[in-house]
Amino acid sequence: MPAPIKIALDVMGADLGPRSALEGARLALENAPKLHLLLVGDESEIRLFLSELPIDISERTSVLPAATVIAMTDSPKDALRNGAESSMRLAIEAVKDTRAQACVSSGNTGALVATSKYVLKTIDGLRRPALLTPIPAANGVTIMLDVGANTQCTASMLTEFAVMGSIVASTDYSVETPAVGLLNIGVEAGKGHEVLQEADNILRESSLNYIGFCEANQLFSADVDVVVSDGFAGNIALKTMEGFSRYIASRMSPEATGVAGLDPRAHNGASLVGLRHVVIKSHGGADAVALSHAINTAMVEARADLPSKIAAGIAKLQSQ
Amino acid sequence: MPAPIKIALDVMGADLGPRSALEGARLALENAPKLHLLLVGDESEIRLFLSELPIDISERTSVLPAATVIAMTDSPKDALRNGAESSMRLAIEAVKDTRAQACVSSGNTGALVATSKYVLKTIDGLRRPALLTPIPAANGVTIMLDVGANTQCTASMLTEFAVMGSIVASTDYSVETPAVGLLNIGVEAGKGHEVLQEADNILRESSLNYIGFCEANQLFSADVDVVVSDGFAGNIALKTMEGFSRYIASRMSPEATGVAGLDPRAHNGASLVGLRHVVIKSHGGADAVALSHAINTAMVEARADLPSKIAAGIAKLQSQ
Repeated sequence: MPAPIKIALDVMGADLGPRSALEGARLALENAPKLHLLLVGDESEIRLFLSELPIDISERTSVLPAATVIAMTDSPKDALRNGAESSMRLAIEAVKDTRAQACVSSGNTGALVATSKYVLKTIDGLRRPALLTPIPAANGVTIMLDVGANTQCTASMLTEFAVMGSIVASTDYSVETPAVGLLNIGVEAGKGHEVLQEADNILRESSLNYIGFCEANQLFSADVDVVVSDGFAGNIALKTMEGFSRYIASRMSPEATGVAGLDPRAHNGASLVGLRHVVIKSHGGADAVALSHAINTAMVEARADLPSKIAAGIAKLQSQ
Repeated sequence: MPAPIKIALDVMGADLGPRSALEGARLALENAPKLHLLLVGDESEIRLFLSELPIDISERTSVLPAATVIAMTDSPKDALRNGAESSMRLAIEAVKDTRAQACVSSGNTGALVATSKYVLKTIDGLRRPALLTPIPAANGVTIMLDVGANTQCTASMLTEFAVMGSIVASTDYSVETPAVGLLNIGVEAGKGHEVLQEADNILRESSLNYIGFCEANQLFSADVDVVVSDGFAGNIALKTMEGFSRYIASRMSPEATGVAGLDPRAHNGASLVGLRHVVIKSHGGADAVALSHAINTAMVEARADLPSKIAAGIAKLQSQ
């Protein structure tokens, strides 16, 4: 029987509005009897929703009222400067104050990354946190990172991402010795830019199961469990997949879409890895089903104490 | 009635071997009564194939024997140093000597780019040629460039790519004032790296129908007709699409795959734009149908004298 767990959910800031987020909360609570949600956002909206829920669900919630919302158009600086009373900031602070073991938000990505780093702090010795997401693959999922937190990266940062991705593949998806690839535009030595050459050299000497460069068409194959890139290339790959998936789905019947594994909701929830606590970014367009998946990822990572595992992995890397 | 046209086809170097390339040649000849193909490669293989063809097809072919083949593993340097007798080199030289109006090869991309630049020369005033490919989109196709010829680019190079892409959208696809976007990881000003900021500024002042930054999920939408990027980001996007397409197709029935527009053969054929002659890179894994599409693209671009149009566009850009 799993232990009780409490997660702070920012119910504001997503494209579909708080009602959809609250439906996602309900779904997550129904699926996980030990889950408690701290619902952060517009108090009247939340209380109205809770009043409609059966008591065995609503009793596993608490409410943290927030006066403001970080807009999708706010810069990370705006969020830090003016967001003190925002639902996102309060949800993150609830984790810092140990009122919750993880935080989930569908809001502005840049603001979430900046605020989480500021409030929750980066793991000792780690250069930068990264955004990590699972994508569908022939053998289940492939873990991709970074998908947007760091536009430009050094070789040391990419190496640390490889360590973190490998730990997540083991922790969240039970892959024993995850095969790690470095995203490039060719697999031959000498391809790509200098940072990739340097990271390739470091990773070859590491204790990871590093398989070398991989190309973007291998992302969905069984060749690799973790694919490491800077946040620019990773974001291009992820959004290409999203856009192409939508394009294909628009030309197919809903049944065929389901069969083909084109439902992106099953993979919703990017982990902001490298912080001292668990933070999950849910897609801005996430519906209730998608959000419940993101909450589930938060539960898995908090229960496994992913930040401690990553801290140990980074310490080990640096002792080598 | 279109004028007769002669295209040099490198029948070697593709994954499926010369027989498949020759089947593609036959298909192209059947579809285009004014097409003449100069078949470059292993003479006995080609002659054997021709002996099986009806006379009205085989009479529109000629044979250029080539003693060697550029391997997929050869570096561009290897190709330039040791490839003098290769099918790829001889096909390109046939274009230079005006024995053909365009060249099509399914061989090694790096070798094709390097050899074509060396033999056919870059258009006056243009910094670098680029690899351009159509991808499927809600409004027909989106033109992407660069997809792999230039790993790193300056803002001036990206601006020239925008001009070339716009001309190809008009010439090959009859788009009147193509909407041009610059691939980035967000649409807000200030996103991405410095080169993108600088290119964005130049393009805003240009006479192109420039719509600003676009994200990779817009590649398949009707938002944009031409998407400009460096060859690293473009290659990542293109190969992500290819890999995801294969992943989806592996989970669907062949009928559903066809309906969904997942057959990549219809978009086979990347144009190496910015040279003084037309060169088309067919996919290494192209089958006969796919290769015939690439040959068709070569016909369209040669008939329209695309290199002259690009030369005029680049001259106009530089006079501004």
